Amino acid sequence: MERFKDRRSIRKYKRQEVPEEMIAALAEEASRAATMGNMQLYSLVVTTDADVQEREALAEAHHHQPMVEEAPAVLTFCADFHRFSRWCEERKAEPGYGNFVSFINAATDTLLFAQAFITLAEERGLGTCILGTTVYNPDRIIEALHLPHLVVPVLTVTLGWPDEAPEQTDRLPVEAIVHSGHYHDYTAEDVDRIYAAKEALPESRYFVELNGTDNLAQVFTRFRFTEVECLEMSAKMQEVLERQGFSRR
Amino acid sequence: MERFKDRRSIRKYKRQEVPEEMIAALAEEASRAATMGNMQLYSLVVTTDADVQEREALAEAHHHQPMVEEAPAVLTFCADFHRFSRWCEERKAEPGYGNFVSFINAATDTLLFAQAFITLAEERGLGTCILGTTVYNPDRIIEALHLPHLVVPVLTVTLGWPDEAPEQTDRLPVEAIVHSGHYHDYTAEDVDRIYAAKEALPESRYFVELNGTDNLAQVFTRFRFTEVECLEMSAKMQEVLERQGFSRR
Repeated sequence: MERFKDRRSIRKYKRQEVPEEMIAALAEEASRAATMGNMQLYSLVVTTDADVQEREALAEAHHHQPMVEEAPAVLTFCADFHRFSRWCEERKAEPGYGNFVSFINAATDTLLFAQAFITLAEERGLGTCILGTTVYNPDRIIEALHLPHLVVPVLTVTLGWPDEAPEQTDRLPVEAIVHSGHYHDYTAEDVDRIYAAKEALPESRYFVELNGTDNLAQVFTRFRFTEVECLEMSAKMQEVLERQGFSRR
Repeated sequence: MERFKDRRSIRKYKRQEVPEEMIAALAEEASRAATMGNMQLYSLVVTTDADVQEREALAEAHHHQPMVEEAPAVLTFCADFHRFSRWCEERKAEPGYGNFVSFINAATDTLLFAQAFITLAEERGLGTCILGTTVYNPDRIIEALHLPHLVVPVLTVTLGWPDEAPEQTDRLPVEAIVHSGHYHDYTAEDVDRIYAAKEALPESRYFVELNGTDNLAQVFTRFRFTEVECLEMSAKMQEVLERQGFSRR
């Protein structure tokens, strides 16, 4: 698959539906991804224009980002230990999955399945975009999609036929992310070298100027991902995990 | 990519190395996967036979499973907010990522990157297997690979040229995992239908007999993934997150 190196996220879609059978076929194929103990600890909730109420509630949870309002389909990939536990209950087996590591295992399964789905969808010419807002309002997503006990949304993806051809975004040089043998910590010189290209980009300079900071890192820490906001989200996420039955123990 | 539906995990590998340049090329391509705010919150630690000490320590952490001892390369995919925070520090920006949601964001980035890597590697004829044992001994993996503050292993994958052609494992019917509009809970009849094929498999019957249980679900709850074990792992995982700086707040 040579095309993966050309991939880019797509935020604008044609007014053309993605048939539900196509989504199901992609999900079926993606379900060949590796899964912990073959438990398949995930569910995929597909919300389209036909689902007026859910769609509106999701748009709200995702801060009315245009792609959530306009994409033919919104995919909510959920960590799901509910289905497996229902099976156990029906078989007089006692499921013991209301704990933190079970959430981690389910989220892991879910994200491997999600990326397999994304890759396969893009191979068929579809465009996708992941929404960072899933961690902002998991409680509202749970309500919008009627998610039961032991089901938590971990990734939201918009899906549709591309109606734009954006520039590729930058990535760090690969030497920045691969460590040989064991982790090699970064010296000040390493940091300078690794981040040089990103810092030199016109859009980086634009955001620095726009926000009146000294550099790009400060744009992130002071505006894009602030500690105050992270702590608020952390508290909410913990609360949501508890409420959905994944005790913090 | 028609071949994804034929994929299977590979646990036996030829005695033939996977060149580090090939792994780096795959990592570079996989890094085109979507990432939260383009922060690339992951690192990949590659451990080969050349890394005798790390290799031995990893094998121990993973309970000496044969594929960890025999695979040409062991890949440890780590959630990493350390590199990004080092950049912030060098730029007099104050990183505020020692919290739970930042761990979740980093783990999400990491798993999308990991599945992209796996898919690309398999496309080139390599075989992979994920190790469920990463959540058992994250502390030992951290020690083995010298992982610093804000770096936590989330997925371990063995990599090599296949030396077996195993049967494909079963999967639930796709209707079990896809929900239209919102989540539709499972009735007792749904559970029977969804799990019928799995329960009827010869190996399922074999494990039921071997363990002397009434059914397959009890094999999972009483032997494979017990509550006692999950609670132990949960406690350790919480402790590890704290110790690596991802406070539970």
